[in-house]
Amino acid sequence: MRALVLDDDRILPTEPATRSLARELYAAVRDLPVISMHGHVDAALLARDEPFSDPAQLLVVPDHYVTRMLVSQGVRLEDLGVPRLDGGPVERDPRAIWRRFCAGWHLFRGTPSRLWLEQELHDVFGVRVQPSAETADELYDQIAGCIARPEFRPRALFDRFGIEVLATTDSPLSELADHAAIRASGWGGTVVPTFRPDALVHVDRPQWKSDVEQLAEVSGVPTATYAGFLDALRQRREHFARAGAMATDHGHVSADSTPLERADAERVYRDALNGTADPAAARAFAAHMLFEMARMSSEDGLVMQIHPGVVRDHDPAVHEQFGPDRGFDIPAAVDFVRGLHPLLAAFGRHPRFRCVLFTIDETTYSRELAPLAGVYPGVRLGVPWWFLDSPMAMRRFREATTETAGFYNGAGFVDDTRAFASIPARHDVSRRVDAGFLAELVARGQLGLDEALETVVDLTVTLPRAAYAPVGA
Amino acid sequence: MRALVLDDDRILPTEPATRSLARELYAAVRDLPVISMHGHVDAALLARDEPFSDPAQLLVVPDHYVTRMLVSQGVRLEDLGVPRLDGGPVERDPRAIWRRFCAGWHLFRGTPSRLWLEQELHDVFGVRVQPSAETADELYDQIAGCIARPEFRPRALFDRFGIEVLATTDSPLSELADHAAIRASGWGGTVVPTFRPDALVHVDRPQWKSDVEQLAEVSGVPTATYAGFLDALRQRREHFARAGAMATDHGHVSADSTPLERADAERVYRDALNGTADPAAARAFAAHMLFEMARMSSEDGLVMQIHPGVVRDHDPAVHEQFGPDRGFDIPAAVDFVRGLHPLLAAFGRHPRFRCVLFTIDETTYSRELAPLAGVYPGVRLGVPWWFLDSPMAMRRFREATTETAGFYNGAGFVDDTRAFASIPARHDVSRRVDAGFLAELVARGQLGLDEALETVVDLTVTLPRAAYAPVGA
Amino acid sequence: MRALVLDDDRILPTEPATRSLARELYAAVRDLPVISMHGHVDAALLARDEPFSDPAQLLVVPDHYVTRMLVSQGVRLEDLGVPRLDGGPVERDPRAIWRRFCAGWHLFRGTPSRLWLEQELHDVFGVRVQPSAETADELYDQIAGCIARPEFRPRALFDRFGIEVLATTDSPLSELADHAAIRASGWGGTVVPTFRPDALVHVDRPQWKSDVEQLAEVSGVPTATYAGFLDALRQRREHFARAGAMATDHGHVSADSTPLERADAERVYRDALNGTADPAAARAFAAHMLFEMARMSSEDGLVMQIHPGVVRDHDPAVHEQFGPDRGFDIPAAVDFVRGLHPLLAAFGRHPRFRCVLFTIDETTYSRELAPLAGVYPGVRLGVPWWFLDSPMAMRRFREATTETAGFYNGAGFVDDTRAFASIPARHDVSRRVDAGFLAELVARGQLGLDEALETVVDLTVTLPRAAYAPVGA
Repeated sequence: MRALVLDDDRILPTEPATRSLARELYAAVRDLPVISMHGHVDAALLARDEPFSDPAQLLVVPDHYVTRMLVSQGVRLEDLGVPRLDGGPVERDPRAIWRRFCAGWHLFRGTPSRLWLEQELHDVFGVRVQPSAETADELYDQIAGCIARPEFRPRALFDRFGIEVLATTDSPLSELADHAAIRASGWGGTVVPTFRPDALVHVDRPQWKSDVEQLAEVSGVPTATYAGFLDALRQRREHFARAGAMATDHGHVSADSTPLERADAERVYRDALNGTADPAAARAFAAHMLFEMARMSSEDGLVMQIHPGVVRDHDPAVHEQFGPDRGFDIPAAVDFVRGLHPLLAAFGRHPRFRCVLFTIDETTYSRELAPLAGVYPGVRLGVPWWFLDSPMAMRRFREATTETAGFYNGAGFVDDTRAFASIPARHDVSRRVDAGFLAELVARGQLGLDEALETVVDLTVTLPRAAYAPVGA
Repeated sequence: MRALVLDDDRILPTEPATRSLARELYAAVRDLPVISMHGHVDAALLARDEPFSDPAQLLVVPDHYVTRMLVSQGVRLEDLGVPRLDGGPVERDPRAIWRRFCAGWHLFRGTPSRLWLEQELHDVFGVRVQPSAETADELYDQIAGCIARPEFRPRALFDRFGIEVLATTDSPLSELADHAAIRASGWGGTVVPTFRPDALVHVDRPQWKSDVEQLAEVSGVPTATYAGFLDALRQRREHFARAGAMATDHGHVSADSTPLERADAERVYRDALNGTADPAAARAFAAHMLFEMARMSSEDGLVMQIHPGVVRDHDPAVHEQFGPDRGFDIPAAVDFVRGLHPLLAAFGRHPRFRCVLFTIDETTYSRELAPLAGVYPGVRLGVPWWFLDSPMAMRRFREATTETAGFYNGAGFVDDTRAFASIPARHDVSRRVDAGFLAELVARGQLGLDEALETVVDLTVTLPRAAYAPVGA
Repeated sequence: MRALVLDDDRILPTEPATRSLARELYAAVRDLPVISMHGHVDAALLARDEPFSDPAQLLVVPDHYVTRMLVSQGVRLEDLGVPRLDGGPVERDPRAIWRRFCAGWHLFRGTPSRLWLEQELHDVFGVRVQPSAETADELYDQIAGCIARPEFRPRALFDRFGIEVLATTDSPLSELADHAAIRASGWGGTVVPTFRPDALVHVDRPQWKSDVEQLAEVSGVPTATYAGFLDALRQRREHFARAGAMATDHGHVSADSTPLERADAERVYRDALNGTADPAAARAFAAHMLFEMARMSSEDGLVMQIHPGVVRDHDPAVHEQFGPDRGFDIPAAVDFVRGLHPLLAAFGRHPRFRCVLFTIDETTYSRELAPLAGVYPGVRLGVPWWFLDSPMAMRRFREATTETAGFYNGAGFVDDTRAFASIPARHDVSRRVDAGFLAELVARGQLGLDEALETVVDLTVTLPRAAYAPVGA
C-alpha cells in the first residue's frame, strides 16, 4: 500500500534557486479564481444539482483519458461500463469497474491523468492512499461516502473550486433550458453556453438533414434555402449571446477556410438537402462555413474558437458499438498557414473579430501559430489542448511560442474537460507550469521578478478575461 | 594527447539532488541482462565465432554512422575501405583507414557515436587515450592485440556483454543455417531470427522476380500465382517461428496499409511477374502486403515491427557505386494516423495481434504514435531509432510520448546495430536516459521513488520481454 | 520606473556548476570578432555614413519584429510611421511612434527582441531604465542625443562592434556602387555583397519582365533568349564575385529543385516574356533555376544559401498598402529531402559546391537537415533564422541537430538583420546559447572542457570563416 502524498512543489523546476522563484510566482496565482472558458461539462449537472451516482461514474466511465489507457492494455470498454449503442450487456457494477481502474493505476505514471486524479482524490475526497487492487474497495467506500453528502453536490463543488465562470459547449439546436434554469434558480454561479455549430456545417453527417429541419423549428427561420440556413444560424447565435455566450467553437478535420462563391454554396446546400452532395462538396462546404462563421463573429462579436486536426473515431468498430468520444480520436497534421489564409485575410485585422486557435499538432507552434498570433490582432493562441494538456507539453508550448508571440497574445488556460471534479487540478497544473517557466526566465536573467509576478497573474486571469470579452464593443 | 575517461555519471541530469536520484535508478538496471530484440548483427558472426579481422573492419568500415560523418567532411568512401560494387580500387590498408577515422575524432563530439565508441574502446578494449592523428597507431595496435585473443571472439563477447537474447534480421529466403548451426553448437547463447519480407513485397525491386522464384524453391510452394505467393510466405513465417523467431520487420517508405481487393492484388502480382507493374501499382501492392502481413501476424502471433519513413539511397551515384546502407538514407515525414488506419481498424484490437511502431520522424511522437499506442491494445511504441538513438532524442521521445501513452505501452530499447561490439554501450545510454527521466519525475514530485525503481526495471527488461512474447497464446 | 540592468550571466544555464562552466566557455568567445555572413543591412548606410535620423527610425519603424508585435495588439502600421505605398497619411512624429513602442514594452517579455533591444539600449546608448509610457520621452532624448554625435555614425559603430566582415544582400541588378564607394573611401571595414537572384527566377512577379530587360542592360548580355538569360546571370555573378561576394542567397516557397529539360526551360522562359506562363510553369521554372544556380555555384565557387518555406505577405491588404517585409510573412512546412534531391544528387558531393540550408520549419532539423548535412560534403547547416533566432529555439536547434550532424557541419551564426545596431546583441545571444549547450555536455560527462573550449571558438569564428571561404579553390 503506497501513501498518496501531494508534493507542494510538484511540477516546479528542480534547481533550488529557480524552484524558490517558482514558488513565489505560483503563490501569487494559486488561489486566484478559476476562469473556465472552454469545456464539456454538461449544464444539466449544475441545473439539477443532484449527487454524483458513484465513484466509477464520477471518475472513470465518462473520462476517455482514463478508459483509453486501460483499453490500451487490453481492458474492454464493456468491462468499464461504457454503454453499447445496441443496449448489449456491459458491466453494471460500479465497484467492479472501479477495481479494474485501481488495478491499472501504474499505467498512469507520468501522465496528466495521474496528476489530476491524485489531486482530486486528495483534495476533493480526502484520499491518502494510492489506488491499487488492494486499496480499491477502501477508496470506493470513501468516495461513495463523500458524494452522498450535500457538500459534494455539483454547485457546492463549483463554489468550493472558486470558479468565476464556466463555459459549456452546446448544440446549436439547444434551447439552453439548463442555462435558463441555472439563472432562474437564484444560485450565484456563472455558467454560460458556447455555440458549437459543427453538426450543422458538415453536410455529410447522417443526421444533418434532420438537424437542419430542427434548426428551422428552434429558430423559427425556414431552412429550405441556403439564405434561410444562414439566417437561422444568425438567430441561434443571437439566442446564445442573450443566454450569456461569449464564444463559438469549431471542430474541423482541417483548417481550410476557403469560401465558396454564393451560387456554389447554394448548390451544395441544395444537393445536401437532396442527399446528393459528394464528400468533396461536403468538405468544401465545411471550409466555406468556417469562413461564414468568421464573418458572423465579425458582426456579433462572439469569439471564435477553432479546434482542428482530429481524425475522429479511428477504430470504426468502436464507433459503431459505442459511439463517439471513446478515446479513439487521433490527432493529424494541420496546415494553419494556408488553411486559415482566406479567413485571416478577410477578418484577421477586423476590429470586431477575434479567434482563438488550438492545436494538438505541436509542429505548428513555432512554425505557424506563434507567427500568426504574433502579428494578426484578431488571433489569440489557445493553450495546449487534449493530449497536450500536460506539464511537459505545456512547457514545450511556452518554449515554442513565447519567443515569437510573447505572452500577451495568449488566451489563458482552458481545461476542456468532461470531468467536473478535475477542473481545479487541471488549472493548478497550468499555473505551476507557467510559474516554472517564468521562474526560469528570471533565473536566466531574461526577466525581472516583478515583471514575472505581473505576467503570471495576467496569464491566469487577465488574459482569459480579455480574450473572451466582447470584441470591439 | 587527451585521456579517455568515462564519467560514471555521464548523461545523468546535472542538478545534484536529481543526479543522486538518477544514480540510484541507474544502479538498479546497470547490470541487468541485455535484451536485444532488433538489430542487424549477422548470425554468421556467432555461428563461425572467428576473430574479428582488424580495428578498421571492426569499428569503422561497416558502421555507416561513422563513415557518413567522415564523408560529410570530404573523406571519400573509397578511402574508408568501403568496397565498390564494380570491384574498383579502394583503400585496403586497415591502418590507413583507422588513421583517417582517428584524425576525424573531433567530428563526433556531441554525437552518440562518440559515446558508443568511447565506451567500447574503454570497456571492451581497455583504451585510455582519445583517438587522434597522434594516437592512431598506438590504438590500432592495442585493439589489434585484443582481437587476436580468444576472449575477444564473438561468443565470448556475447557472454561478457550479458546478452539474454539477440534477434537478428533475416531475408525471408534464408534457410537460417547459421541459426541452426548456433543451436547445434552446444553454445548456450540465444540468437533468434526475424522475418523481414521487404524484398518480396516491393515488386519494383530489380531482383523481385528472381527472389519470388527463389521463394518457391526454399518454401516448396509454387509462387506462380498470388495465392501461392501468400502460402509460400506463410510457410516461411512458420519456418522462422520454428527457428525461434518472435517477430517480423517491415521497412516501407510510407506507412500506407490500404488493402487491395483480392482481384486487384492478383492482377498486380501477375503484372509484376510479367514486368509490367507500374510504380503506382508497386506502391499499392506494398501497402496491401503490409496489411496482409498484419493479417498473418494475427494468425501466427509473430510480433510485427514497422519501420517506415526512410528515403533510401538519396545519392544515386553512391548507391550505384557502393550499394545500399552507405549512410545516404534520409528520413522523411510519415503519416501513421491515416497510413495505418486500415491495418489498425482491422487488427488493432485483435487478441493475437501486436505491432511495434518505430519512427525517425519525431513530429509523429505526440501527434500520432503516443495517441495510437495509448488506446490500441495491439500497438506498442518502439523506442527512438537510428538517427534518434541518442541521449537528447531519447529524452525528447520520453517527454513527447509518456504523458499520453504512459510507460507501459512501450516495447523497451532496441539497439538496431550492425556493430556487435557497440551493443552494451547502446543499451547503457538508454538506461541512463531513462534513469534521468524518471529521476526528474521524482524530483518534481510527480512519482514516488519506489514507483520509479519499479518502472526503470520494467523499461529495461520486463517490457521488451513482454512486447515480443507470443501474442494471445 | 524599472531599472534596465543586464545580467552578466543572462541566458546561461541555471544549475550553478554548469553555469560556472558556461561562463568559462562564454568568456572565451565574448570578445571575438563578429563575422556577419548573412543580413539585410543596406550598404548605402556604410557608404554614406550619415547620422541615424531619430530613435524611431533607428529602432522601431524598419524592424518588422518590433512592428508586428505592436500590430498584434491592435496598433496600426500607419501609427508606427510605416510608409504607405500610395503616399497616404501616416504618423510623421518620431516621438509619437517612440511613445507607442515604449507603451508596448511588456509585450516583448520573453522574446529575443527584448534581449536585443535591452542590450542595444544599455550597451550602445547607455540607457539604464526600461522603456515605458512614463520613460519614453527621457529615453527618446537620450538616444537622440547619442546619434547626433560622430561616434554613433554607422562606420564608427561598425568598428566599435568588432565586425570582421559584413555581408549584405543585394539585387542581381545592382551595380554595387555602394560597395565600390566603401572600398574607395579608404575606410578599413570589410563589407561584401551577396547575390540574390530571386526577382529574376520567379517569372510570376509583376516586375519580372522589366527586371529581365534591366538585367540585359546591366550585364551587357541580351536576355531575349533563355541562353542569354543564363549568360547574363553568370556575368552578374562574376561582377558580384569581383566585388568581394562569397555567396548567393535564394528565397523560395518550397525547396523543390527539379530541373527542366532544356527545351521546356526555354519554352517557359519564352512564355514568361510573352506574359503567358501559368502559375505551375512559374513554379517549375523557379525550381529549375534553383538547380541551375547550384550548377553555377559548382562552377564559380560562390556558396549557395537557401532560405525556403516562407509564405510571403499573408495579409494581402497589408501588402497592397505597405508593400513587402511588413511582418506578415509566415513560415510553412518544407520538404528538403525530396525537394533538394535533384540538386544534391547532382552537386552534393561536387568538389566545388557548397550550400548552407536554413529553415524556419523546426520539424526538419532532426528529420531532414541534420541527416543531410551529416553525410553530404556539400551541405552545411544554417543556424536558426528569423523567428527561430532566439535562445530557446537555438537551443532546440543544437539539441536536434548535433547528435546527427555534429558541430562541424554547421556554418556559424548569421544575424539576418535589417537593424544595424542589433548586430552585437544578436551574436552575443548566440554565443551564450552555444556556451550553455557545451557546458551541459561537459557537466553531463559527454565532452571534456578542453574540447568544449575548442568547439565554442570554432562555432564562433572558425566555422563561418570556413563555410563561406571559396570552395575547392
